[in-house]
Amino acid sequence: MKLSKNRNPAVPGFQAVGVCCGIKAKNIKDLALFISDVPATAAGVFTKNRIVSPGVTWSRRALKSGSCRAIVVNSGNANTVVGPKGMKDCDEITKTIAEELSIPQKEVLIASTGVIGVSLPSEKIIKAAPLLVKKLGRTAKNWTDAAEAIMTTDLVSKSDRIQYTFQGKRITIGGVTKGSGMIHPNMATMLGFLYTDAAIDSKTLKMALIEAADRSFNRITVDGDNSTNDCVIVLANGEAKNPAIKPNTSGYREFVKALTTISKNLASKIILDGEGATKFVTVRVQGGKTRKQAYLIANSVATSSLVKTALFGEDPNWGRIFCAVGYAGASFDPDKVDILLNKNLLVKNGNPTNLSPQKLVKAMRQHEIDITIDLHGGKEWEEVLTCDFSYDYVKINAEYTT
Amino acid sequence: MKLSKNRNPAVPGFQAVGVCCGIKAKNIKDLALFISDVPATAAGVFTKNRIVSPGVTWSRRALKSGSCRAIVVNSGNANTVVGPKGMKDCDEITKTIAEELSIPQKEVLIASTGVIGVSLPSEKIIKAAPLLVKKLGRTAKNWTDAAEAIMTTDLVSKSDRIQYTFQGKRITIGGVTKGSGMIHPNMATMLGFLYTDAAIDSKTLKMALIEAADRSFNRITVDGDNSTNDCVIVLANGEAKNPAIKPNTSGYREFVKALTTISKNLASKIILDGEGATKFVTVRVQGGKTRKQAYLIANSVATSSLVKTALFGEDPNWGRIFCAVGYAGASFDPDKVDILLNKNLLVKNGNPTNLSPQKLVKAMRQHEIDITIDLHGGKEWEEVLTCDFSYDYVKINAEYTT
Repeated sequence: MKLSKNRNPAVPGFQAVGVCCGIKAKNIKDLALFISDVPATAAGVFTKNRIVSPGVTWSRRALKSGSCRAIVVNSGNANTVVGPKGMKDCDEITKTIAEELSIPQKEVLIASTGVIGVSLPSEKIIKAAPLLVKKLGRTAKNWTDAAEAIMTTDLVSKSDRIQYTFQGKRITIGGVTKGSGMIHPNMATMLGFLYTDAAIDSKTLKMALIEAADRSFNRITVDGDNSTNDCVIVLANGEAKNPAIKPNTSGYREFVKALTTISKNLASKIILDGEGATKFVTVRVQGGKTRKQAYLIANSVATSSLVKTALFGEDPNWGRIFCAVGYAGASFDPDKVDILLNKNLLVKNGNPTNLSPQKLVKAMRQHEIDITIDLHGGKEWEEVLTCDFSYDYVKINAEYTT
Repeated sequence: MKLSKNRNPAVPGFQAVGVCCGIKAKNIKDLALFISDVPATAAGVFTKNRIVSPGVTWSRRALKSGSCRAIVVNSGNANTVVGPKGMKDCDEITKTIAEELSIPQKEVLIASTGVIGVSLPSEKIIKAAPLLVKKLGRTAKNWTDAAEAIMTTDLVSKSDRIQYTFQGKRITIGGVTKGSGMIHPNMATMLGFLYTDAAIDSKTLKMALIEAADRSFNRITVDGDNSTNDCVIVLANGEAKNPAIKPNTSGYREFVKALTTISKNLASKIILDGEGATKFVTVRVQGGKTRKQAYLIANSVATSSLVKTALFGEDPNWGRIFCAVGYAGASFDPDKVDILLNKNLLVKNGNPTNLSPQKLVKAMRQHEIDITIDLHGGKEWEEVLTCDFSYDYVKINAEYTT
């Protein structure tokens, strides 16, 4: 799998912009704004970390109304663990942006990513607000600028778009995201912004977002760390003029499918952009009794440092995979487990197949590694995407701040 | 903290031996035997991995009687994920050792450590059994040989002894252990063998072992992986002729204290022997409401790849510590948290103290790093010992099998 080209993520009825306001040095873009032309329904999912950025608290609260139009995002500073000034900054920034846009303050969401524990230079954002709003637009360049402005040390910007037809109306979903972990994990924050012209109420939108995230953004792991600022937000402005999407309908299933597809594409781009990452790894657990059981096992394998270093070294050490299955904290019958790596059967009914190490090494030379674990205990499955663990991971992370 | 010299771990009424039987190449010791002169009470704690070595199953079963005299241990092969032959090998080996010792087979425990998924050459062990028993003895060399024979790729053997007086009788506890993780983690197995001349019934002994292990062997982490073969076994033969130690007495508390002390010394030696490890790290969480809460948080910090790479690089990136506290999955009040690194206050009441990075870097240059997290929410505490995460960790683990 190579990094797929970013599709122009523009969606009818939405504008975007990215500028440099001076938080980052050297004229690097660090401030983005996304806005719907008309009032939109909105939903978000956020980090499970108990320590959260005031921005997360702000946006969670604003989303309770189910209606929001704008998202202001800065990179270069996470505005986290900075004392009471953090929330005051959120208030001042969203207030300024709302005034410039002539919309209510409560319709402006905020997200930040960057270094923790350093006071946010909010005055730079406030000073840049008029320019930011003035430069809003619908061109491909507008969206590229915005996608770049939310990057921290991602190597490439990440965006995508998907379209499908629902009851005669074309529905578009666009999205931009930035990477997490591996590369510069103190900026481990994963931010994802999705926006669609579908007509869908906020409650149904939230359900769909949770379903999609649980098959995409919540199923990638680089180093297991969970940032203070992670969020995925979706806005839906109804400009497609489709009959409203309702829960428990085929229309809902189609929408979830499209939202999951774009989310998984964006999440894959995060894994593929891991500096130091040399492999794109999919750990699939199938034959599970429950999704939770399948997830625990897939996550255990995908986060094992031993598995990840073996993948980097192309070391045919499959015992590490089986070992990580065992300590996942999920119950299963060890005598029923099959394990495959790129279709090579390594373990059958809990016993080694004695595949030749040469054959396994050859399979491990692929850039894409698919590890499949079949529990033969049910019909549920989960997939977790990850990358390998290289020298560069240690190098980059040992020398991040200094 | 430097590797402390191994004390002669001999204990009255116990013999040991270590020989090479040919599992490992080049005349490296790979077979050990520990035995009590007289019947002993016995207890063990084992890995929580769902995939276990037949040796673990064997020893768990044998320990149900509460009485065992001998432990036979091989290194170089874990006898794990090898099909039905694994249990048959356990049966044949313990049977042979029992015959040579003229004791019942059910009094012989077994442990293995080494590569997974390769059939154990049990015939080599069986052939070596007469020599093994013949060379049993009480000298310091006997114990050194035994401690060496259980090593996999540990750099040094690990043993210790502690003595104290209880109601006029001198009680001795000895122990040998081998390392886990970091170095060659497919041999990640941690084995610990403790033996004492104390008189104590098996039920009380098991209680004491669990208490001691939960403050020592169960509180070290190198890479979070939990092997298929981990075990800690204790034998008590009563040769000290003390009045039997009973639960809920001061005598019990003293015994637990001594057992915990030697266990923690041995566990520290495992951390200190991590190839590639450049730091000895103690993560202490205090002010906890429950031990579980304190443990979850301490373990989260101690297993964070981001924290561990920052410690290796002496990077004053304390935000990573706070972030790992947050995603530990334990509830606490973020506004009450204090964080100290080698007595430097980094976070006070959830806010940064703005300690100068220079001062923090200086503190991080120490070989011993103490991270203290005070939750100010109760009186419980937990400590987890770990090491940093270096280039060598990746190097060694990427190139282990090949």
